[in-house]
Amino acid sequence: MDIDIGCALAETASPGISRESLDELDQRVTSIHETIQDQRAKGEHGYAALNLPSTVNLEEISSATDQFDDAKAVVVAGIGGSALGAATLAEALDTEIPLYTLDNVDPATTNDLLDSLPLEDTALVGVSRSGTTAETLANFLVVRDAIDESGGDWTEQTLVITGDSGPLAEMAEDHELPKLSVPKGVPGRYSVLSAVGLAPAAIAGVDIERVVEGGASAEKTLTDSLYECPAYAYGAVAYALDIRGATVNAVMPYSEQLECFAEWFAQLWAESLGKDGLGQVPARSLGVTDQHSQLQLYRAGPREVLVTFIDVESRPTCEIPPSEHDRLSYLEDTTLNELMTAEQAATKGSLVAAGRPTVELSISELTPESLGNLLYTMEAACILAGGLYEIDAFTQPAVEWGKRATRALLRGETTKETMTISDQPELRISSAEQASE
Amino acid sequence: MDIDIGCALAETASPGISRESLDELDQRVTSIHETIQDQRAKGEHGYAALNLPSTVNLEEISSATDQFDDAKAVVVAGIGGSALGAATLAEALDTEIPLYTLDNVDPATTNDLLDSLPLEDTALVGVSRSGTTAETLANFLVVRDAIDESGGDWTEQTLVITGDSGPLAEMAEDHELPKLSVPKGVPGRYSVLSAVGLAPAAIAGVDIERVVEGGASAEKTLTDSLYECPAYAYGAVAYALDIRGATVNAVMPYSEQLECFAEWFAQLWAESLGKDGLGQVPARSLGVTDQHSQLQLYRAGPREVLVTFIDVESRPTCEIPPSEHDRLSYLEDTTLNELMTAEQAATKGSLVAAGRPTVELSISELTPESLGNLLYTMEAACILAGGLYEIDAFTQPAVEWGKRATRALLRGETTKETMTISDQPELRISSAEQASE
Repeated sequence: MDIDIGCALAETASPGISRESLDELDQRVTSIHETIQDQRAKGEHGYAALNLPSTVNLEEISSATDQFDDAKAVVVAGIGGSALGAATLAEALDTEIPLYTLDNVDPATTNDLLDSLPLEDTALVGVSRSGTTAETLANFLVVRDAIDESGGDWTEQTLVITGDSGPLAEMAEDHELPKLSVPKGVPGRYSVLSAVGLAPAAIAGVDIERVVEGGASAEKTLTDSLYECPAYAYGAVAYALDIRGATVNAVMPYSEQLECFAEWFAQLWAESLGKDGLGQVPARSLGVTDQHSQLQLYRAGPREVLVTFIDVESRPTCEIPPSEHDRLSYLEDTTLNELMTAEQAATKGSLVAAGRPTVELSISELTPESLGNLLYTMEAACILAGGLYEIDAFTQPAVEWGKRATRALLRGETTKETMTISDQPELRISSAEQASE
Repeated sequence: MDIDIGCALAETASPGISRESLDELDQRVTSIHETIQDQRAKGEHGYAALNLPSTVNLEEISSATDQFDDAKAVVVAGIGGSALGAATLAEALDTEIPLYTLDNVDPATTNDLLDSLPLEDTALVGVSRSGTTAETLANFLVVRDAIDESGGDWTEQTLVITGDSGPLAEMAEDHELPKLSVPKGVPGRYSVLSAVGLAPAAIAGVDIERVVEGGASAEKTLTDSLYECPAYAYGAVAYALDIRGATVNAVMPYSEQLECFAEWFAQLWAESLGKDGLGQVPARSLGVTDQHSQLQLYRAGPREVLVTFIDVESRPTCEIPPSEHDRLSYLEDTTLNELMTAEQAATKGSLVAAGRPTVELSISELTPESLGNLLYTMEAACILAGGLYEIDAFTQPAVEWGKRATRALLRGETTKETMTISDQPELRISSAEQASE
């Protein structure tokens, strides 16, 4: 893991941070690092996530997942932090056993997935700390029934990852299901290096011990200066650019296997930092594809976008066959890999030439270790940024209103929330009449 | 199609637009509408896209695609506007014959796709106006070779959609391939209702005549007032909110089948409007999933996000089976569909209650007609917004630098661009030493 913040400096980019300001910021980093270390030592809420490489119980995970060794597919019923960690690991490491997440309640998707799954050989993993998350439990109940209807036995094919009490914990007790705990003090979006992210990934075939080793190696880099710690360098620079006007953070991996990582990062960044009117809006992007979609805006639109490149240096190869056309000669004797590498360099260069801020994270190869390192690094970056913004990076109070409203709407109750919904102003413009002509 | 802009008004939202300002804006809409109609009548560059429902030649498309009736899969080699239209139609309409887009040059993805495809029964569609787009031609050459190696014959399985000259046009002539034209005067991101979007979709099984009918019904709604035209209402309100501070447009469909539509929209919006330091940053979002990821930020982060809901009223059904747990009783006798609908209402309500601006587009059901209508509506909205920003919504000059740089890098040439790249300032922070301990 290597991070280059040179093109986020004010000498190149606008907005950009001057070297003097970076030195000043580093003093705050030193102080926040002390707080982080103190809170970690006490196992305080949220900060405990940074201890996971040494606190996670891999043996417990193994003994709960071993019985699913013959599974031909894994379905995770979970949403947000209960799904994205496992999905990120499975996608990035291209597992042979496919891992599907039911992290939406679109009946079309759920029906399609159930139609295509080998249900009798599918492992179902229900993940919800409270055991009551509406979307998760709805999907869980649907899949549970479908397994039994297919001739399988859900009580033999199900793992739950939940808190000490609640419906999922009760089911585990009633039916003697294997059960793992959502770790205390670790919010969902910081839980990838716990049972929440690791257990479903392990069933799909990920070598989770190596993932945790990668996290541990990132843990060792947490020092009291951003100049020595990639995580703090990233968190500090993203924060500094945000308050200087780069209010959008476009995370642009140059690897399709990191698309889900960009989703994971977007949740981490948005839900942790988006409060008190503060926070940087994550925009999910993908190289090279979005060069033909978003790059025009990144380069010539408002000066409010930081582009974070995630570069993977080593990829599989795929040679580009020769063609008989002179105008394609520049593609001869090259590979898709070389083309992608050239495009990444060209895209970064084009933003630098336009004075737009960029940061580049490079990992040598997608391995369990490098993934674990990247995920831990981003969590530490986010916690550092929370300190710089002086907000609590571990809560998400703004989502409660909607959860209450959903329950009231389903129950047909009238509450403050449902009254707000029915009192919303409307100004409708319709094309119905013309369309039906 | 129905759009509700009531919750974007200043009486509810901040930023928001007052009714008086909306009336004033409507006068500009009237004048820009006249320009649009004049330019359409002349078939001017870009505006010609709005004439496609009457100018597209469906018979020509049919006769070029009929020979692929037995294809078991469709691969589109194209990028940006040459891929997203077809991908959007195929995903939204859930075609039986799968359509894959090779719109990246990640060798891992290309290799994986080639391994999984029935190559002898795959239709290859190469889409590039110039016939020289690096990514597209690289993938095209790779797939062409793979088809022949599998025992197929690429010259029997390939359709090209390109301009009058260039390598793809030459290949079509040399090997008597069916060929369709990228329409003149229609930039790629506005080409979904031409052969570019329709032909690959037709091979996948989309009823393209109905798609075009949907576009034609939206065309009829283009009138001289935003109060009577959903497209103009959307374009005007998004613009008005942007210049009032909602510089990010989070498009949040409540349908997984519209994920690719959000990508399509993001290209349309970013590449058309992102210039001269202006434009609104599109952020791709998804209901309900992103309620557990982005909603905290949308509701409590910086007041710079407009959330555009895309609601689909009618969905397939999937009943939620009963559970034995009291705390899940609110899920009993309900369906995933009802849950999703309640969550959409609750999420919008939660943003309204927090004074955040939202716009809601509703379509009754995902059909070829409603898709055609939606796509045309958004194109017209974008062209109207271009008029309001007073920029040229049909060019993308800022991407040329990177294309030149890529070619120079691959050829090993030294140019102004490559010198910029090698002169970039670096400030590297590395965890390599610690990680290898």
